[in-house]
Amino acid sequence: MSQLACTHLVQFYETDQMTIVHHSNYLRFMEEARVAWAHQHGLIDYQKIESASHFAVVETRVKHVKPSFFGDVLKTFIQVQRRGARVVFQYKIENQHQVVVALGETIHVPLGLDLKLKRLPADFISVIERQLWTETWL
Amino acid sequence: MSQLACTHLVQFYETDQMTIVHHSNYLRFMEEARVAWAHQHGLIDYQKIESASHFAVVETRVKHVKPSFFGDVLKTFIQVQRRGARVVFQYKIENQHQVVVALGETIHVPLGLDLKLKRLPADFISVIERQLWTETWL
Amino acid sequence: MSQLACTHLVQFYETDQMTIVHHSNYLRFMEEARVAWAHQHGLIDYQKIESASHFAVVETRVKHVKPSFFGDVLKTFIQVQRRGARVVFQYKIENQHQVVVALGETIHVPLGLDLKLKRLPADFISVIERQLWTETWL
Amino acid sequence: MSQLACTHLVQFYETDQMTIVHHSNYLRFMEEARVAWAHQHGLIDYQKIESASHFAVVETRVKHVKPSFFGDVLKTFIQVQRRGARVVFQYKIENQHQVVVALGETIHVPLGLDLKLKRLPADFISVIERQLWTETWL
Repeated sequence: MSQLACTHLVQFYETDQMTIVHHSNYLRFMEEARVAWAHQHGLIDYQKIESASHFAVVETRVKHVKPSFFGDVLKTFIQVQRRGARVVFQYKIENQHQVVVALGETIHVPLGLDLKLKRLPADFISVIERQLWTETWL
Repeated sequence: MSQLACTHLVQFYETDQMTIVHHSNYLRFMEEARVAWAHQHGLIDYQKIESASHFAVVETRVKHVKPSFFGDVLKTFIQVQRRGARVVFQYKIENQHQVVVALGETIHVPLGLDLKLKRLPADFISVIERQLWTETWL
Repeated sequence: MSQLACTHLVQFYETDQMTIVHHSNYLRFMEEARVAWAHQHGLIDYQKIESASHFAVVETRVKHVKPSFFGDVLKTFIQVQRRGARVVFQYKIENQHQVVVALGETIHVPLGLDLKLKRLPADFISVIERQLWTETWL
Repeated sequence: MSQLACTHLVQFYETDQMTIVHHSNYLRFMEEARVAWAHQHGLIDYQKIESASHFAVVETRVKHVKPSFFGDVLKTFIQVQRRGARVVFQYKIENQHQVVVALGETIHVPLGLDLKLKRLPADFISVIERQLWTETWL
C-alpha cells in the first residue's frame, strides 16, 4: 500500500535548458522521499549522522512519463519490500494536477561506515514486514 | 525588516565527503528563498514560465559562519532593496538551534527572455519600495 | 561495439557524506558521455543550442557495481542502437584501475522545442545504423 | 601571476531554463580549478581522501560578467595568496572566445577531519609564498 512520503516544490535550479526538470533530479526526489519515509517510521534520526550511512544504492530505474516544470508541486508516493538481503523501494511521483510524471525503483543494501556489507538491521526488517506491497507501478 | 522566506530540510544529496552541506548549495537555498519571497508578494506565478526569467544574477557573496548537516532544518530570512536598476537581496540562514550558519547577498538585473537588459517592472518596484531594510548582516 | 566516449575526473562536489560519488551523478556522467559521443559523430554542434533539445530521456537504469571516489578518473564506454522510434544508449563506466563501477541504460525519444514527439532525424538514424551493438552489459 | 588551472566543457545538466549555466555552478567550476591547482603543485593526492578535507570555504564572491552556454569551453585562471591563517584564491573564467564570463574569490581556512581549525600546513605555505599575486580582478 503506497504512502505519501513527501511533497517537493520544483526549484529553478532543478530545471535545464529544455525548460523542464533535469532527469537526474528525480533520483534526488526519490532519495528525499525515502529518507522522509524512514524518518516517519522512526528508522532515521536526522541528528545522528551515522544512521544515514546504512543504505547504499545498488540499482535505480526511472520511467519519465511527463515532464515537470519550475513551480510544480510534486508528491512522491512510496512502497517498500524486502528481497533477501536487499530492500526495494518503488516511487510514484505526481504533480499538482494528479498527473503521474515519473515512476521509479531503487534497490539498496545495508552498509557499514567502512563501506562493507552488513546484515539488515532488525528495526528495519520489522518495519518493512508490516508494509503492504499491493500496487504495480513498473 | 527581514522576513522568513522559507525553511529547507537539508537533504543527503546536499552533503559532501566532509559530511557537511557543500558550499555551492547555499546559493541554491538563497534562490529558493528569493523565489518564495517573490511568490509571497505576488511577483511570481509559478505556472507562468516567463515570469521566472526576469532576473539575472550579476553578483553573489556568501559568508559561511557554521557548517550545516544532513537533516538540519534551515530557515532563510530575507531583506531586499533597490539600487538604481539593480535589486539587492540579503539573506540570513539559521539552523533549528537558531544558530546563524550563513549570510549572503545576491544582486540582480531584470532581463528579457532574449537575455537583454530591460527596465525594472513596475510591480516589482512598488513591492520593494514598501520593504524596510533595517538590518546589517554583511 | 563499445567506444570510449569520454573521461571524467571526479570532483569534490560530486561526493556525499558516505565519502563516495552520489548515485545521481552517474546519470550526469552518462549524459556527458552521450553528448560527447553525439559530438564525435557530428550530430551535435555545441554552439547551436537547438541541437541539444532533440532528445528527451524517457527511461534510465543504473547498476552500481563499486563506489567511486574523489579524484577517480572515470572512463565511460558507450554503445547505441535504435528500437523503433526510440534510441537506446548503454554505458559501462570504469575507474583508473579498469574496474567497472557502474553500468547503465538510457532510452530517448526525439522531441521538438515544443516538447512534442517528432521523427528521428535522418542523420541520427544513419549514424546509429552504422554502429555495432555486440556487448551484453545489463 | 595567474595560471591556467583547468578547462571545463559546459554540460547540459549545468544549464537552467534561462538556457544559460546556472550561477551556482560557478562555485563548482572554481572548486574544480582550485583542486587542479593544488594537484599541479603537489598539494593534493587524489587517492588520499584525507588530503581533500583540509580546507573549508568561509567566504565566496562571484561577479557574473557574461552568461555561458551548453558546449562552451571555459578556462579558469587562478591566483592565490595567504592572509594570516587564511588562504585566498581568485579566479578569472574565460570562454572559448577569450571573453571573461565570471570573476570570483574564495577564502579558506585549514580544517581537521574533526571540523576544527588547524594551522596552515607547511607545504601549503611554502607553495603559496612562491606565488605572485599581480593582477587585479575584483
